[in-house]
Amino acid sequence: MKILRINTRERTCAIEEMGEYSGLGGRALTSRIIRREVPANAHPLSKENKLVFAPGLLSGTMAANSGRISVGAKSPLTGTIKESNSGGIVSQKLAKLGIGAVILEDKPERDAPFTAIRIHKDGVEFFDAPERGGRDNYAYQDVLNDFFGGKAAVALIGTAGEQCMQAATIQFSDPYGNPARSAGRGGMGAVMGSKRVRCIAVDDADASGIEYADKEAFKAANRRWTEILKNHPVTGQGLAGFGTAILVNIINEAGALPTKNFRTGRFDHAADVSGEKLSETIEKRGGKVHEGCHPGCVMQCSQRYVDEKGEYVTSGFEYETLWAFGPNSLIHDLDLIAAMDRLCDEKGIDTIEMGNTVAIAMEGGLIPWGDGPAAYELLKKIGTADPMGRIIGNGTGYTAAALGVDRVPVVKNQALPAYDPRAVKGVGVTYATNPMGGDHTAGYAVCQNVLKVGGDVDGHKDEGNIELSKNLQIATAAIDSSGMCLFVAFAVLDTPDAMQVMCDLLNARYGGSITPDDVLALGVQVLKDEHSFNADAGFTKHDDQLPRWFREALPPHNVTWDYTDDELQAAKTF
Amino acid sequence: MKILRINTRERTCAIEEMGEYSGLGGRALTSRIIRREVPANAHPLSKENKLVFAPGLLSGTMAANSGRISVGAKSPLTGTIKESNSGGIVSQKLAKLGIGAVILEDKPERDAPFTAIRIHKDGVEFFDAPERGGRDNYAYQDVLNDFFGGKAAVALIGTAGEQCMQAATIQFSDPYGNPARSAGRGGMGAVMGSKRVRCIAVDDADASGIEYADKEAFKAANRRWTEILKNHPVTGQGLAGFGTAILVNIINEAGALPTKNFRTGRFDHAADVSGEKLSETIEKRGGKVHEGCHPGCVMQCSQRYVDEKGEYVTSGFEYETLWAFGPNSLIHDLDLIAAMDRLCDEKGIDTIEMGNTVAIAMEGGLIPWGDGPAAYELLKKIGTADPMGRIIGNGTGYTAAALGVDRVPVVKNQALPAYDPRAVKGVGVTYATNPMGGDHTAGYAVCQNVLKVGGDVDGHKDEGNIELSKNLQIATAAIDSSGMCLFVAFAVLDTPDAMQVMCDLLNARYGGSITPDDVLALGVQVLKDEHSFNADAGFTKHDDQLPRWFREALPPHNVTWDYTDDELQAAKTF
Repeated sequence: MKILRINTRERTCAIEEMGEYSGLGGRALTSRIIRREVPANAHPLSKENKLVFAPGLLSGTMAANSGRISVGAKSPLTGTIKESNSGGIVSQKLAKLGIGAVILEDKPERDAPFTAIRIHKDGVEFFDAPERGGRDNYAYQDVLNDFFGGKAAVALIGTAGEQCMQAATIQFSDPYGNPARSAGRGGMGAVMGSKRVRCIAVDDADASGIEYADKEAFKAANRRWTEILKNHPVTGQGLAGFGTAILVNIINEAGALPTKNFRTGRFDHAADVSGEKLSETIEKRGGKVHEGCHPGCVMQCSQRYVDEKGEYVTSGFEYETLWAFGPNSLIHDLDLIAAMDRLCDEKGIDTIEMGNTVAIAMEGGLIPWGDGPAAYELLKKIGTADPMGRIIGNGTGYTAAALGVDRVPVVKNQALPAYDPRAVKGVGVTYATNPMGGDHTAGYAVCQNVLKVGGDVDGHKDEGNIELSKNLQIATAAIDSSGMCLFVAFAVLDTPDAMQVMCDLLNARYGGSITPDDVLALGVQVLKDEHSFNADAGFTKHDDQLPRWFREALPPHNVTWDYTDDELQAAKTF
Repeated sequence: MKILRINTRERTCAIEEMGEYSGLGGRALTSRIIRREVPANAHPLSKENKLVFAPGLLSGTMAANSGRISVGAKSPLTGTIKESNSGGIVSQKLAKLGIGAVILEDKPERDAPFTAIRIHKDGVEFFDAPERGGRDNYAYQDVLNDFFGGKAAVALIGTAGEQCMQAATIQFSDPYGNPARSAGRGGMGAVMGSKRVRCIAVDDADASGIEYADKEAFKAANRRWTEILKNHPVTGQGLAGFGTAILVNIINEAGALPTKNFRTGRFDHAADVSGEKLSETIEKRGGKVHEGCHPGCVMQCSQRYVDEKGEYVTSGFEYETLWAFGPNSLIHDLDLIAAMDRLCDEKGIDTIEMGNTVAIAMEGGLIPWGDGPAAYELLKKIGTADPMGRIIGNGTGYTAAALGVDRVPVVKNQALPAYDPRAVKGVGVTYATNPMGGDHTAGYAVCQNVLKVGGDVDGHKDEGNIELSKNLQIATAAIDSSGMCLFVAFAVLDTPDAMQVMCDLLNARYGGSITPDDVLALGVQVLKDEHSFNADAGFTKHDDQLPRWFREALPPHNVTWDYTDDELQAAKTF
């Protein structure tokens, strides 16, 4: 594997050996590069920041669910180091081209034309990006298809990224030709926008492909790996049945579904936006209930949501998005929520951040609670000349400041996802202490707190949740480095030989002899890189905490949040 | 002296003994109250924040230049503790009523009517504030005069404060009946706005007045004190001659006048906006070159700026304001700059923050460099329904995020004042390390670096400037606690017996036997209160630093900024 360094000001590139980064992939690689090469006190939109795209260690192989990509930088939203993880078809193509990481460096003048980059087996080409001409991402994907020829596999920013909005995503082409997969959190799209790169197209035609140290061993390991994923009730059936939206009813039942800006844990209209309702609606209209976000996925947790006429609206319509535009804002119209999901992909902006932002707009009296059409109109302003779009596009904390709202559900200025931390304390610990700001994927204790997968820890009690979150954060950092979809964790946690099978895959690919302990050690190392960057950027234990109003009791279970700053530090002590 | 606690939700008040706060005044008192009573991680706009108004220890007495007021809270702009210091006529009236501090606590619902508070010798009254009816502060002062009867002495927020803008000021009535004096920095007006208090009127009619332990000794000390101030060339002549605007030519000559968002230290058109030009213009038009901001001022550094028809435009038109709307934005039209100063007082918003914000708007391409009319139109949006006003009103860092600008001259999110820190390193150390964020008054090393008052330390070299800033920060904290105008420091620094005379004043007022060492110890204690609050709020040595781009050389002297984070900590080590 090689490193591809691109100077965005000069539009030049250099191909380097992996060198000191050898043996790393995905999040382990993006975080190590940012830690080593970006000053912790650099402005995230300055030429000193870098944007790194890294396929995981297993990406490009035939291993099931291994096609995720890590995007890393110093985040404009949080000021922390950030790894944002996405599906789509770019990761596997980069890996097949033998590219371990693409690093965007430097930046041109602020009015420089946007660049389109094409990476293929013979090198890298730079173009003035084709005119956007008012087109949002879906229509612009078509323009790029024409520009590059054929179905382009792209990483793309929308108008939100072009304006360097702090909640801007990088969108990735999905297997069906839509720019529907997102490196969603932390404003990676703003970093790309600051470097005036509108898109990177990756073409793996005639690529040399993946080399295996032992291809037969890899195939054997992958057979077992696929079996593990297919045999587990969550990865084999639950996710495939209703997608992640199956959680609406489950989390609501648990009294942990944040409703009206985290005021209660139950939503009266949860049934209207449940996974069951979603599937029923899709089936009735002739959409697709099961789809994968990248080739080789055996879970197929995504879907193709269509309107009443059967026309495609959106896909990758996750529980967190449903929640953000639904219960948290008191909206319960599935079609409207789907339209907002699509709109966010069109603009290139994070749905979790935007859902919380909509709730803040309601909190601040800008639009009425539960008014979906008004929320949609507000989101439409993003990426336009309307200054309100620049407020909304910068996210929850920013919008709260514009409106003088003090009930702001953020950690390190990143909006919290779809699990009330008082009722799912393990994930609350993750929100507070993980290196990325308010994030659930970094240590998804919903497994043990609610789903009772991989253990049973009471989500209402303090006991055990710090240790739980810590261990999950370690495992997650390792999984995010492998290129595996995080959802493999459901099966891995419940299957004794799963970790060893992951090691078998890595060893058959690279010829090493790593063990499960090595994998966990890698996870710890990733977290250490990230926490040390953050410490140098000025973050302390006082930043590893939820807003004070979470100390108020949450109905219906009247649970509160009362960990001290010092207690929470145990989740970061390795 | 007593403490007056006001519950802004219930519209009730309680009068308390000074108790643990006994012996404190001004900044020493506001910072101690915030340190003790406000959780460091409270949201600045939440009910847990408090807003404290405290006259200085000598306020209300006959001592020259002792009528300043301290306003303290956790700052919405910086997240640090904040003391914002103002002239005007409220401080002396509070002191004469025997009130050591007014503390606004709690907050009503966000749509509650605004409150007008009246404090007088018999107690406190609460009213629904008279309708603003679209009126800005000057016209609203008239409404308040009618409402309260006579010339009301008020602390007042404008529309910026009502919208909880992070750069909102609290305006104080000046001796001429205009709301022209500002507790300008750090968004104290937003805290007042969050508590839905529009104004506090203080009426000292029939107040018992100031008690002196030894009135004759006080008079004697004040005679010498007045002599000291009148005899020093800066306080006796310089400030009275041209006001603080005398600095335009001096700082430009020193190559330290930040021009075009801190790109160079010289401005081609400095002469057009100099103090000399300001005085000449005022005199020609029949304005007033000398005015004081409070009764008892012997310096008279303020002025009455009038238009070509001789009509009043603004007063308290400081060097920093002139600079912010002038050289830093490449504007050199005095009338326009004066109009922007007035507009900021009308809206209730900080001129230093707004001048930098205008430069960021130019940096971000929102308006052209040097376009004064466009800048004026932009500022007019503050406090209106236009969302651009909510961007601008939240200040420099916030506006930079809206526009994707990475050249952002802030420390702890507060915009830097009118001295390039590379060429006036002593003040640069103050910007970086004082507890309030980018602020010059907290340790005004311009004295020694440029004016050569109170010593001579080269502003271009690292040597000596950390120690210099530290000592000035200590002295300033003490002066800010006395109620004395900070400008007394010019004379105090050069006059051997001045510190003793200040002690004589304090002892004659309160009957103690404090010494100059005690005064300095008080200054250290104030800083310790403030720094410890900030540490608990999550600030570290990495926050005590200038933005990285100050490491670039500043023309014409090509000086750079190269203190390390660790070196700078010496300025906070007591």
